[in-house]
Amino acid sequence: VGDAIRESLDPEQRQRVDATLAWPEGSAGRIMHVDAVSVRADVSLEVVSRYLRRRKSVPANYDGLMVIDREGTYLGKLGFGTLLTADPEASVGDVMDKVQAVDVCMDQNEVAGLFERRDLMSVAVIDAAGKLLGRIAVDDIVDVIRAQADAQVLGMAGLEEGEDLFAPVVPSARRRAVWLGINLLTAFLASWVIGLFEATLEKIVALAVLMPIVASMGGITGSQTLTLAIRGLALGQVSAANTRWLTTKELAVGFLNGLLWAVVVAVVAIVWFRDLGIGAVIAVALIINMAAAALAGVLVPLILERFGIDPAISGSVVLTTVTDVVGFMSFLGLATLFLR
Amino acid sequence: VGDAIRESLDPEQRQRVDATLAWPEGSAGRIMHVDAVSVRADVSLEVVSRYLRRRKSVPANYDGLMVIDREGTYLGKLGFGTLLTADPEASVGDVMDKVQAVDVCMDQNEVAGLFERRDLMSVAVIDAAGKLLGRIAVDDIVDVIRAQADAQVLGMAGLEEGEDLFAPVVPSARRRAVWLGINLLTAFLASWVIGLFEATLEKIVALAVLMPIVASMGGITGSQTLTLAIRGLALGQVSAANTRWLTTKELAVGFLNGLLWAVVVAVVAIVWFRDLGIGAVIAVALIINMAAAALAGVLVPLILERFGIDPAISGSVVLTTVTDVVGFMSFLGLATLFLR
Repeated sequence: VGDAIRESLDPEQRQRVDATLAWPEGSAGRIMHVDAVSVRADVSLEVVSRYLRRRKSVPANYDGLMVIDREGTYLGKLGFGTLLTADPEASVGDVMDKVQAVDVCMDQNEVAGLFERRDLMSVAVIDAAGKLLGRIAVDDIVDVIRAQADAQVLGMAGLEEGEDLFAPVVPSARRRAVWLGINLLTAFLASWVIGLFEATLEKIVALAVLMPIVASMGGITGSQTLTLAIRGLALGQVSAANTRWLTTKELAVGFLNGLLWAVVVAVVAIVWFRDLGIGAVIAVALIINMAAAALAGVLVPLILERFGIDPAISGSVVLTTVTDVVGFMSFLGLATLFLR
Repeated sequence: VGDAIRESLDPEQRQRVDATLAWPEGSAGRIMHVDAVSVRADVSLEVVSRYLRRRKSVPANYDGLMVIDREGTYLGKLGFGTLLTADPEASVGDVMDKVQAVDVCMDQNEVAGLFERRDLMSVAVIDAAGKLLGRIAVDDIVDVIRAQADAQVLGMAGLEEGEDLFAPVVPSARRRAVWLGINLLTAFLASWVIGLFEATLEKIVALAVLMPIVASMGGITGSQTLTLAIRGLALGQVSAANTRWLTTKELAVGFLNGLLWAVVVAVVAIVWFRDLGIGAVIAVALIINMAAAALAGVLVPLILERFGIDPAISGSVVLTTVTDVVGFMSFLGLATLFLR
């Protein structure tokens, strides 16, 4: 929140903004509401009902009250449904829901996971000492989930979070230039690999015509596996225990599809260039590259994650580098060895 | 829900499943809960409170009751917050929230949009005649939003919704083969374009070494614009009114980055192949392809959407075809015209 915006708020709003801005970006504290209405555990429901009646209203999207002790330590939640249906003589402490609170420093994505797993409507936010600080409602979490999905999709295209289609030309161009520059380095690497085989390309120009096919089919195979692996990592389905099984499985999928499309491409190449050798070479190169792509699709995100790099953002660049290099190297290398 | 699962349910659960399964897939009816507790508008809050107390409990994640008239027509919602704070003598009709209900056939994604825009906790589901059928809570919507984001990410890699990393090899391979086949067609188209310039490639083999750079930089530029345009369309930010402005803006961004990277690539090409001509040709080809890519990044999703095709799924294949064809055509075409 900019200073100008801050100045435009009334004192009460400003205090709320300041209270949440004190917490780190992406933390539960940043999205909590500090207006959590709380009650003490030792009073009766009757008293709570009378208190609410005197209050005349509760903040929007409230589904209950937070329960605290004399020191302000969070104890549980009294849902409005419970308050309305339980015995009015019962004490708050007896009927409250002892639902877990979240730490004010917890990552927002983790809080979102908790809401999803437990179908929560709201949760209390506490400090390290267990004192009630505020409350997060599910409508705040909907925004977190939306932003998370958005960041993933944008990241896959090398776009920054919050990148705007309607931003002015120069800042847009500058932000996107970074990703283009990284991609250029990998493109030069692919060019260098092709350059190793200049002599072969000079003799058999058909290789230059067909080589993008090998790279492209590897790229698609790899990005399919990569997308699934990144999702599996995010959902916690991929772990050390099943890495080996998964690698074998994806390798088999890549190999099977390599086999299938190698036959198709070989037939087209043989008919096109009336050369059996070229058909055989592109078939073998396709199988090698598609198997390598599947392998890289599992291993690249695992390795990036090990080094603390977000695979959703940088995974595709690393993968394309692998499929380009292996694709050009196997196709042109095999051609150099076996053709003419 | 399979028949075996259906058989294992008790009669009450089975009735509920049958009631929701009657509605089309992806509709509000499919995710609604048919256990919506309703009250009549003409009773007092006092009576409602006594009724709830006798009921002893309300279903989990309830934030209020639906208000209906004598015929079962939906009128509004009585939030628990209101029930607890308003005057007990008031009638339900006087204090209820006249919040709009959703039609049972409404698309789930549209319902999710409504929850997000209005920060709703629950909404009534009605039939065409306005009769109350059930209720959707925000925790059901969280699942919808998550599935929506998931489908988008998977679709971008040509993967089907529900594609599973842990599915067996053969079905996995078969499902992914479709996308590989579509991609192969576009790869052959690119090869055909390169084939048009065989004579030139035979004379200047450096062209074969450098040509993937032109295609790749165009591909990245295009996919950045495409990703933003698809998001803009999904969020309803892109319309006929701003298409022209947006196209001009993205064209300018593509042109600016084309200019920047053309200089870099030209310098490297000149140093590498000691040939000024090749540097000039690749620079111009890069600018042409990156501008064309930006243009295609805006227009391809708009055109696909016009024809009722989901741009999130097929956009990238169409775009890559454009950037490959324009890239190879401009680079090899210019080289044929101006080099040696």
